Amino acid sequence: MLNERTRQYLQDNREHHLHKLFELIRIPSVSKWEDEGCQWAAGWLAWYLKELGMDVEVVGGHRRPNVIASMHVRDDIPTVLFYGHYDVQPVDPWDQWQSPPFDPQVRDGWIYARGADDDKGQLFTHLMAIDAHMKTDGLPVNVKLLLEGEEELGSPCLERFLQDHKDRLACDVAVVSDSSFFAADVPSITYGFRGLICLELTLTGANRDLHSGHYGGAVANPADVMARLIGEMHDERGQVTLDGFYKDVFDATEQEIHAWAKLGFDEAAYAADLGVEALGGGEHGRWVLERIWGRPTIDCNGMSSGVTGHNSKTIIPASAEAEVSIRLVPDQDTDKIEQTFRRFVEARVPPGIKVDIRTIAKARPLRLNWGSPAMRTAAMAYEDAFGKEPVFIRSGCSVPVTELIDRILEADQALMSFGLPEDRLHSPNERFPLKQLYRGAVAVASFMQNYPGMKMAYDR
Amino acid sequence: MLNERTRQYLQDNREHHLHKLFELIRIPSVSKWEDEGCQWAAGWLAWYLKELGMDVEVVGGHRRPNVIASMHVRDDIPTVLFYGHYDVQPVDPWDQWQSPPFDPQVRDGWIYARGADDDKGQLFTHLMAIDAHMKTDGLPVNVKLLLEGEEELGSPCLERFLQDHKDRLACDVAVVSDSSFFAADVPSITYGFRGLICLELTLTGANRDLHSGHYGGAVANPADVMARLIGEMHDERGQVTLDGFYKDVFDATEQEIHAWAKLGFDEAAYAADLGVEALGGGEHGRWVLERIWGRPTIDCNGMSSGVTGHNSKTIIPASAEAEVSIRLVPDQDTDKIEQTFRRFVEARVPPGIKVDIRTIAKARPLRLNWGSPAMRTAAMAYEDAFGKEPVFIRSGCSVPVTELIDRILEADQALMSFGLPEDRLHSPNERFPLKQLYRGAVAVASFMQNYPGMKMAYDR
Repeated sequence: MLNERTRQYLQDNREHHLHKLFELIRIPSVSKWEDEGCQWAAGWLAWYLKELGMDVEVVGGHRRPNVIASMHVRDDIPTVLFYGHYDVQPVDPWDQWQSPPFDPQVRDGWIYARGADDDKGQLFTHLMAIDAHMKTDGLPVNVKLLLEGEEELGSPCLERFLQDHKDRLACDVAVVSDSSFFAADVPSITYGFRGLICLELTLTGANRDLHSGHYGGAVANPADVMARLIGEMHDERGQVTLDGFYKDVFDATEQEIHAWAKLGFDEAAYAADLGVEALGGGEHGRWVLERIWGRPTIDCNGMSSGVTGHNSKTIIPASAEAEVSIRLVPDQDTDKIEQTFRRFVEARVPPGIKVDIRTIAKARPLRLNWGSPAMRTAAMAYEDAFGKEPVFIRSGCSVPVTELIDRILEADQALMSFGLPEDRLHSPNERFPLKQLYRGAVAVASFMQNYPGMKMAYDR
Repeated sequence: MLNERTRQYLQDNREHHLHKLFELIRIPSVSKWEDEGCQWAAGWLAWYLKELGMDVEVVGGHRRPNVIASMHVRDDIPTVLFYGHYDVQPVDPWDQWQSPPFDPQVRDGWIYARGADDDKGQLFTHLMAIDAHMKTDGLPVNVKLLLEGEEELGSPCLERFLQDHKDRLACDVAVVSDSSFFAADVPSITYGFRGLICLELTLTGANRDLHSGHYGGAVANPADVMARLIGEMHDERGQVTLDGFYKDVFDATEQEIHAWAKLGFDEAAYAADLGVEALGGGEHGRWVLERIWGRPTIDCNGMSSGVTGHNSKTIIPASAEAEVSIRLVPDQDTDKIEQTFRRFVEARVPPGIKVDIRTIAKARPLRLNWGSPAMRTAAMAYEDAFGKEPVFIRSGCSVPVTELIDRILEADQALMSFGLPEDRLHSPNERFPLKQLYRGAVAVASFMQNYPGMKMAYDR
């Protein structure tokens, strides 16, 4: 149990913490926009962490720097590394927001804003817990922080960064909060993420848009070719057709499938929330949670060619663009799958069409052990904050840092996430419940207090 | 041969006619834009034709009216109906124009502007010829004019209009100038057009864009489904896979293929102009001119789903749109093919996706007899104006009015077109050579003078 003084401090400072979080949310730190937003947010965080009394450095001269902070208490207590990211997704379609995306508003107990959950709201639970310990009984652990500005771009520089700063970021355990509960009343700890390869395809045909009457039948049409190669990525049973795509898949164990089945997943409610008649995605014949958590997938994220709608023209477009994301599971090899994908595309490009394939992001899949001291402490902390034993789940998402922490820093990890499935991540009207923010901070504070004892018990 | 006085009048009034044409081109009559541009252009034409002394009516209360004009000379001479359209294609991408699209400029003997060729420039050859006869020896034929404002939308109301005004538009022969020479130095008369079905597809999945990690594998992805169904419209040999698509195709005759082979079509130069390495479109194993003129095709004209490029996001898009144009040849049935297409699409939409198919435009294919009095007179007129016997060609394009004149007005037709293949129709930097404008007017005037005699010879 978290000590009473720290708990009370969190209770008494809710308004203050919310006020600070809103200051951060108001900074439009969209990493895709390549403007000054991310530098501004990094600066704000540096200032705030200094005010808390930490040593802070903003590292990286580029436009989306990392913020590193630390406070060393004693050598004989463990060190916890907190990871969060301050960059957010773009906000279009703008017209679907009920309130401006960078003007946080509280309605019916929810904070509405881009980044309210992902990840400004969630990383703030760390800052609140650290603040609470500092202002009451003092930090029970040494603290390090790594706040990234390129997570929504797929953390392209993070691997190199962790390698370069391996000693400086060395820790016993890392706390990452960038995922979500299984359901609103089901506290959940994530023990696995899918990997990701994000690719941009450009096909170029003639040197200009051509009249589809004059030229239809003469030249290969980049839109048709793009459609064809995206269409051929799946067969009629929803299986990915890339050569050997499933070869290295480590299937979910019986124990996992059994645990997932007990979660009470309500397919009908899930479909109703999405407004679809049926859950027609993924591989036929597999259960939906297995398809999302335990199986790799490919999705076209966007396509653009010619003109559609009001200004449409009967042309053969000069080019076609598409973005594709591949979600991987253990033990698929990210590089191998990327090469397979490139070969798949190149083999399908006919004479008269040029292809350009750009890899935008890559992250390896991860699956952690539920029985580690970090996971056990996290489970206790959840019970403390939410009054319920948590479930252990996997996520279909990709949080590149978790795999890098595992591989490069070789630290134990507690993936303590407080988002809810209905928080509309990456979508208009993103939101985060105030309750999850406040209880999340209690959970993190509880974790910090109890981890040293748990670690000692395991080490013995 | 055209009489000397009329020829001289055309020569002397080049500046004046060009000045008038520029007035018309400056009106941005983009039928897609649904603004006042088309009404403005119709009004200008009505005013100009009245000034020439014709009876004029602007018909149709909607935004893109038809302009009808006539001048009856005597009952014992034939009546010629001139058709042209004053509406033009949209102009995007705007940034690729070297001069503003609605500010006509002459550079190196070409008029540069949207509509310079298609069809303002070409229809002006009719007005110039009519003006020349009127101002010199008087009209040798009765004249009617039909100037349309919806051709670039596929003439959706024209069939009904011709049926409603059948008596008023009755004529012996129609002159249509809305196509092009086979090559710059090859005067050409078109005797066939492909038909057209233009369709807009919209697929809708979830009620919002979804995170491709959270939901990838759960729900059917409208972008993937759209890609798949567009991709499946062709097989790996470039054949259209729609059920019975080729069943009613009346293949080009040996005589036609023989005539086309003599045209000296230069595949390498054609590919070089388009900037492609190979002409990889259409059905494998058929010659490119046959593919364009004699075979039906399907092209995707545009696709749009999610976001690509700078603001791309790893989402499963909520919807996908595409526009598809089908080009038909005799004796394919437009309605039957449309139904086949709808069934093809509907059969490929999985659970969880809704489909909407909207038919935007439809026109039947046409193939005329080269030996008619109109065609023969036109051939003489070309020799008169261009000093060369014309070739007879087909076009891959669709000019709906020609099939309607054939079927509803049951009139003979002379498809006297003066555009060049390099005029960049529907593309940025559309252009039209001054030489084609001036010689085209001579050809039309010559046709008017010689048609009565030719008709009498045939009638005898």
